[in-house]
Amino acid sequence: MKLPGQEEFEVSSACKNVPTGELDSSPGSGPRPDGPLDTKRGNLGVSKDPLLFIQLNELLGWPQALEWRETGRWVLFEEKVEVGAGRWSVPHVPTLALSSLQKLHSLLAEGLVLLDCPAQSFLELVGSAHPREASYNEEALLKEQHQNPLRQKLPPGAEAAAVLAGELGFLVQPLGAFVRLRDPVVLGPLMEVPLPSRFFCLLLGPSTVGKGYHEIGRAMAVLLSDSQFQWTVRRASNLHDLLAALDAFLEEVTVLPPGLWDPTTRIAPPKCLPSQHKRLFSQLREVKGPPAPPGALAEDRHGHWLRTPSPELQRTGRLFGGLLQDVRRKASWYPSDFLDALHPQCLSAVLYIYLATVTNAIIFGGLLGEATSGAQGVLESFLGTAAAGATFCLMAGQPLTILSSTGPVLVFERLLFSFSRDYSLDYLPFRLWVGIWVATFCLALVATEASVLVRYFTRFTEEGFCALISLIFIYDAVGKMLSLTSAYPIQSPGSPAYGCFCQYPDPGGNESQWTRTEPKDRDDISSMDLGLVNASLLPPTECAQRGGHPRGPNCHTVPDIAFFSLLLFLTSFLLATALKHVKTSRFFPSVVRKVLGDFSSVLAMLLGCGLDSFLGLATPKLTVPSEFKPTLPGRGWLVSPFGTNPWWLSVAAALPALLLSILIFMDQQITAVILNRAEYKLRKGAGFHLDLFCVALLMLLTSVLGLPWYVSATVISLAHMDSLRRERRTCALGEPCSFLGIREQRLTGLVVFILTGTSIFLAPVLKFIPMPVLYGIFLYMGVAAMSSTQFTKRVQLLLMPAKHQPDLLLLRHVSLSRVHLFTAIQLACLGLLWIIKSTPAAIIFPLTLLGLVGVRKALERVFSPQELLWLDELMPEKERSIPEKGLEPKYSLGGDSEHSELMYQPKTPEINISVN
Amino acid sequence: MKLPGQEEFEVSSACKNVPTGELDSSPGSGPRPDGPLDTKRGNLGVSKDPLLFIQLNELLGWPQALEWRETGRWVLFEEKVEVGAGRWSVPHVPTLALSSLQKLHSLLAEGLVLLDCPAQSFLELVGSAHPREASYNEEALLKEQHQNPLRQKLPPGAEAAAVLAGELGFLVQPLGAFVRLRDPVVLGPLMEVPLPSRFFCLLLGPSTVGKGYHEIGRAMAVLLSDSQFQWTVRRASNLHDLLAALDAFLEEVTVLPPGLWDPTTRIAPPKCLPSQHKRLFSQLREVKGPPAPPGALAEDRHGHWLRTPSPELQRTGRLFGGLLQDVRRKASWYPSDFLDALHPQCLSAVLYIYLATVTNAIIFGGLLGEATSGAQGVLESFLGTAAAGATFCLMAGQPLTILSSTGPVLVFERLLFSFSRDYSLDYLPFRLWVGIWVATFCLALVATEASVLVRYFTRFTEEGFCALISLIFIYDAVGKMLSLTSAYPIQSPGSPAYGCFCQYPDPGGNESQWTRTEPKDRDDISSMDLGLVNASLLPPTECAQRGGHPRGPNCHTVPDIAFFSLLLFLTSFLLATALKHVKTSRFFPSVVRKVLGDFSSVLAMLLGCGLDSFLGLATPKLTVPSEFKPTLPGRGWLVSPFGTNPWWLSVAAALPALLLSILIFMDQQITAVILNRAEYKLRKGAGFHLDLFCVALLMLLTSVLGLPWYVSATVISLAHMDSLRRERRTCALGEPCSFLGIREQRLTGLVVFILTGTSIFLAPVLKFIPMPVLYGIFLYMGVAAMSSTQFTKRVQLLLMPAKHQPDLLLLRHVSLSRVHLFTAIQLACLGLLWIIKSTPAAIIFPLTLLGLVGVRKALERVFSPQELLWLDELMPEKERSIPEKGLEPKYSLGGDSEHSELMYQPKTPEINISVN
Repeated sequence: MKLPGQEEFEVSSACKNVPTGELDSSPGSGPRPDGPLDTKRGNLGVSKDPLLFIQLNELLGWPQALEWRETGRWVLFEEKVEVGAGRWSVPHVPTLALSSLQKLHSLLAEGLVLLDCPAQSFLELVGSAHPREASYNEEALLKEQHQNPLRQKLPPGAEAAAVLAGELGFLVQPLGAFVRLRDPVVLGPLMEVPLPSRFFCLLLGPSTVGKGYHEIGRAMAVLLSDSQFQWTVRRASNLHDLLAALDAFLEEVTVLPPGLWDPTTRIAPPKCLPSQHKRLFSQLREVKGPPAPPGALAEDRHGHWLRTPSPELQRTGRLFGGLLQDVRRKASWYPSDFLDALHPQCLSAVLYIYLATVTNAIIFGGLLGEATSGAQGVLESFLGTAAAGATFCLMAGQPLTILSSTGPVLVFERLLFSFSRDYSLDYLPFRLWVGIWVATFCLALVATEASVLVRYFTRFTEEGFCALISLIFIYDAVGKMLSLTSAYPIQSPGSPAYGCFCQYPDPGGNESQWTRTEPKDRDDISSMDLGLVNASLLPPTECAQRGGHPRGPNCHTVPDIAFFSLLLFLTSFLLATALKHVKTSRFFPSVVRKVLGDFSSVLAMLLGCGLDSFLGLATPKLTVPSEFKPTLPGRGWLVSPFGTNPWWLSVAAALPALLLSILIFMDQQITAVILNRAEYKLRKGAGFHLDLFCVALLMLLTSVLGLPWYVSATVISLAHMDSLRRERRTCALGEPCSFLGIREQRLTGLVVFILTGTSIFLAPVLKFIPMPVLYGIFLYMGVAAMSSTQFTKRVQLLLMPAKHQPDLLLLRHVSLSRVHLFTAIQLACLGLLWIIKSTPAAIIFPLTLLGLVGVRKALERVFSPQELLWLDELMPEKERSIPEKGLEPKYSLGGDSEHSELMYQPKTPEINISVN
Repeated sequence: MKLPGQEEFEVSSACKNVPTGELDSSPGSGPRPDGPLDTKRGNLGVSKDPLLFIQLNELLGWPQALEWRETGRWVLFEEKVEVGAGRWSVPHVPTLALSSLQKLHSLLAEGLVLLDCPAQSFLELVGSAHPREASYNEEALLKEQHQNPLRQKLPPGAEAAAVLAGELGFLVQPLGAFVRLRDPVVLGPLMEVPLPSRFFCLLLGPSTVGKGYHEIGRAMAVLLSDSQFQWTVRRASNLHDLLAALDAFLEEVTVLPPGLWDPTTRIAPPKCLPSQHKRLFSQLREVKGPPAPPGALAEDRHGHWLRTPSPELQRTGRLFGGLLQDVRRKASWYPSDFLDALHPQCLSAVLYIYLATVTNAIIFGGLLGEATSGAQGVLESFLGTAAAGATFCLMAGQPLTILSSTGPVLVFERLLFSFSRDYSLDYLPFRLWVGIWVATFCLALVATEASVLVRYFTRFTEEGFCALISLIFIYDAVGKMLSLTSAYPIQSPGSPAYGCFCQYPDPGGNESQWTRTEPKDRDDISSMDLGLVNASLLPPTECAQRGGHPRGPNCHTVPDIAFFSLLLFLTSFLLATALKHVKTSRFFPSVVRKVLGDFSSVLAMLLGCGLDSFLGLATPKLTVPSEFKPTLPGRGWLVSPFGTNPWWLSVAAALPALLLSILIFMDQQITAVILNRAEYKLRKGAGFHLDLFCVALLMLLTSVLGLPWYVSATVISLAHMDSLRRERRTCALGEPCSFLGIREQRLTGLVVFILTGTSIFLAPVLKFIPMPVLYGIFLYMGVAAMSSTQFTKRVQLLLMPAKHQPDLLLLRHVSLSRVHLFTAIQLACLGLLWIIKSTPAAIIFPLTLLGLVGVRKALERVFSPQELLWLDELMPEKERSIPEKGLEPKYSLGGDSEHSELMYQPKTPEINISVN
């Protein structure tokens, strides 16, 4: 049997063999990978070199039954063959012994290096790598290759590299050979996948103790999988370049002490890879001393932490200047806003967000109906959501936004209603005037380009607002649930007998057999002598059917409903939470997990409804109108401008409208700021002025029609973005999928709202939904939004002993007592907001929201800019002066260079608030 | 200002300076650390050298304000000062750059090495390390040192080492100095803790780019924290030894590729450290080639996987030989069985196990009362548990065992009772004879040393049995809960009116105002004409008090109870589960977490009871006798030998007794096998024969007194052991606490049962416990025990896609389809056992338990010994023949040497089944 290694010596002279002597110091041609000038490239996309798939084949069974076997493979991470189990291991970070790298170094230094070898002569060489006698099943092997699932994961244009290692007892000394072909060739059954191969490395030698060649082969494969080594080796012109690249690799390796780290431990792929930029940077520093002026570093660093004043937030100084700019900028994207939606992902996003929107419309419609005693209701909620949402999607600056009724606006509407009821005002006309004024004020804000002030909304403000909305959700959900237990009281042993008679009229038609006058109180009823004659124990409904009258204190009490409602409430909440976690669990195929996770709350709702209809108890259900007409009886679709109100009320409405305008502005713009965060990598830019303009117009429309008021909803909009994430299609095995951006388009939102509009006719179906289930989902939404904030994480820190706290960057840089102080201040603000919201002072609530920005400003007197940089963000004024003044640590020991890596990392979006 | 480095040159000649020239090849004196002859040492306890605390002090602020600052410390893992946050980082595995180690190497090679320097001269040198002007607050510093919490964590005898590194701009070239004092000295304010220091390393040099000296200082500190380096450096006689130790360290380091691993990532301390034994072994192999015969390796490896035939399982061949041997062996430990209990930990164990035992007695008492229609009950359960448990603790071979009623025995008793009821037998006398026979059979088993057969109980049998018990728990809990909903029916809208009248006798004392005869069915009642005259709607109880009679179909229906019970059931189950998880959460101080975790089910019970009494509903409560007399009315404490049964029944009882004997044997011995597993490191040995002897005697006693039957209970006994774990008191920072063994003694068990006995008088308190709460805890116990088995983990694998499966050793060695096949067979066995248990064939259930061993034997024909080694354990016969035959993998590639490390690890006990 001929072995590839034997023949290689013979043909090696045909290639350009580079002996050790011919040293050349030229470092190869072409630009360095991912240099400082080229920072936008991803982790894998180092230069335009093709992706390399590396396979380690080992020669086993010496001396009796020689056989080549694949024992490992690499794209980025290592996968090894589990020999006993006959499967691939999970991808992991490869760990090497230092000695293997050193042995590889000497093998290469003394071995053969063939660079730009013509494929033809090499093919003759390698042709025998696969024994002839095996050729009969070669076709089957090739077929298998093409069906290899791995092939689907590798991007087009990927190349393969083969490392061949093993023991050959007859060799006297080890031999190493490294071949780079001029043009890559497909090597047939040698490789697992039919990709063209350019690099080959052969490492053979006499029998050794242990797994010498296996480990050296692994070292070669790991080297080849390193992007910088790959870059050099593609351009290397001689052996010296190759060895220099190996030395450069060694220079950068991380070393783990043997007493603390078991080398057989497999390290799971890290969440984010070290940036190539940083690697190159540190190399340059090694070579040239401090390479960049400190300013450049500071700038780069702050880029991620200070909000760069984006063009859409520059004040033009002209009336409606910002709006015009927004319109102009957005118009150029308009065609693409529809073309970009032509992707199957958008279809699933539509279904997902449609269900979330309908759920939201149902819940808010119900709440609104309650808050306004039926002046508006579910029908208005559906109609308004559909009309306002669709209009917004077509016109707005940020079409990813999902318009919805929000908690604070509901609180305000509730206040407005109770005010108009207290003073016997005609609610809807009054509300119409408030709406007209709000629209006017908002237009004024658009005209004066007030939206540029959103630069002052830091994380402190955003999270304070988000926490408040979440708390309102949670409080309302629990409150509604508890109010059910008073509507359906629990029968405690001490309560009166659950008596209910059916009383028939006597033959003379004279039904009154009550011998006493109407009872005065409960005890009276219980103990009085009834003296009934014509009575039975039929259930109230049947009794009425048979012409009798249900009599007694408990004819209208329905038992068991309170606890059953509580069960439904808890079930839907816990189930939605549990299903959400399925997405990140180890169970089920990824499709199933995605469906269960994405539709967690829909599934929880369905299960709740199923449970309810299975038991058939008379739980309170969602009341939906069966006819298409306004909820308030007797009003038309247009609200009359005055009704029974005095004329001056239309002027007086300006006062509440002022407050509502502040609220609308804050609510709308905080959401917009969160959505337009840099980490979501939006390409088409924001449109703060245009958005506010649309909200103002819709305010007018909804007030005229008597529909709910709408602004952008944080929670549901983030869920929308989450469902439109673009990610790198082909990921290296084990590599975390990299986030490319969001499919920014208008179509998904539009379709969602059109569907919502048609759902008005779903009324007969919707009435099967028990209210406790909706409250449970409501609670889930509040808890999910609440737990997604950094504020919540910091509150949790309050309960953790220092040694158990997670290794947050924040905690590496700010002392714990300062972190706690910041959290305590935020908690106090939240408490104050809550108190104001709950007392009659609620009317000034919008002003206090604005006060959050003031508190944040005042915090600059308590905390240093450096602390605020970690705990929050910096406010615009300070932006320029800080890099010089206060940001650099007192000593440069460690702090800076150790953590800057993490600061360089492009922040991955944390869209973990999600409704359904 | 004078710096320590400056003076050092002057006095260095006073010490024995070892220049590079004086090379000596003697490798130091004394035994190598933890050599192959000395494998019993722990990970830290390498030789008897003291533990070393290493501190890195850095010279900062050059040139304006020179200052020494502590920036890092090591015991095993690294802790660094977070400069910004002013706190210690969490302990982590230190990672180094290869270049730092290389720079350290050259600094030392060219620097000063002072070995066995007299302390006096060194002190003069170091005296100035702390500037004179700071001396006024030296006392305060010293006081602080003594209060340092770190000092409490370091064991007595620990030493300190100081690494001093920094930049001094005026130096022309870097300088390194390494000092080993002859006798360690306490260095005052230089060190954080007032420990004697022996090693000093000074690394100073001119300004460099980056953090050169910081990193080199870290490298030195990490080296010093390595046990093997420490060992060598304590014995080094010259510079050569020192550098050789550094090279040896380098030879063993693990290397991580720069493209995949960010060096600033902090690696959490691994769960178990690599064994020193393995490190030395691989070093020896490097030096000498294959060092040990393959047999030695194989033996060592199998030691953990095959049950070594322990002395207590050797057949003596004499009647009662095993029992005598057990008694003799145990007698020698008897005094220590009480003395060893003198530890505060035993007190908390008593409280914990007492509560678990009482809970268990209550639940089983309730079940027993139901199963035997009151022939036995809670009182018998308490009394029996106390008497049998205390006796067992005093006499048994394995006093850690907690005797308790178990599921299978209960199932059997239920069968026995229904049999005796079906044939109108007098139950307790019949049961007495069964007990007498069982005791006889068990004594025969003791006499014939049958307990040595437990060697055939592999994990397959243990887990099959454990899973079955758990399933019985779960099924019973859910079943009981559901039966409550039929006892307290839910009032659906279609059910009849909840009418209930209070009817008074008419003035003539003639109460019958019902105009019809007694109603025939529900409908009849509902629709009949009542014609009542003297009636009211008073609740039934009040009605009776006032001399009336409650009339109507629903006078005895209590609404709301069904759902409230379900809520209580779920609450107690979920709460117990959640509280259990608190133990491993990040929240709360460790004391609070331990209390919440340990008493999770007690707390869940208390909360359930609180909720119940808060609402005051008439939920079914635990019925406990208020008088101290047998539950069955009219019987005395001694069971009459025949009662109304025919005489021949005493002979016929031998048949069920035979089956029960098998059951008792299996139940008792499987538990004993689990408890005596090698991983629990018991010193005093097991006593299988003695235990069975005790069980036989107690069988007789409990049968005579009509008390429940008892055997060792797996779940509660494991909880007992868990509460008595001995762990290394002082752990290195970040090091997982190492498990030393169990406090084996008799006192905790004895006290627990004495307390249980006195609890009979707690009856007035116990009657506040609602049954649904108990059922919830019951469910929790079943689920906890079920989820602790490897079987459950393998069942979960069935639901996981291959790529998401955890990296189990099992899966590295056995192909997935074979793992699934094994799991499927186990599932089938479990299903079969369950079916048999649930059908009238249940009487042969004990035989089928025995059948599990047979099935396991038959599996040897389906699976290879290698597969069974990973999936289960090997059965005794095969033990000797396997190392030669089938265990070695086909090729030695990777598989073996990569995983053997994990096989060498002493298994840490997996006592994660816990009741409370």
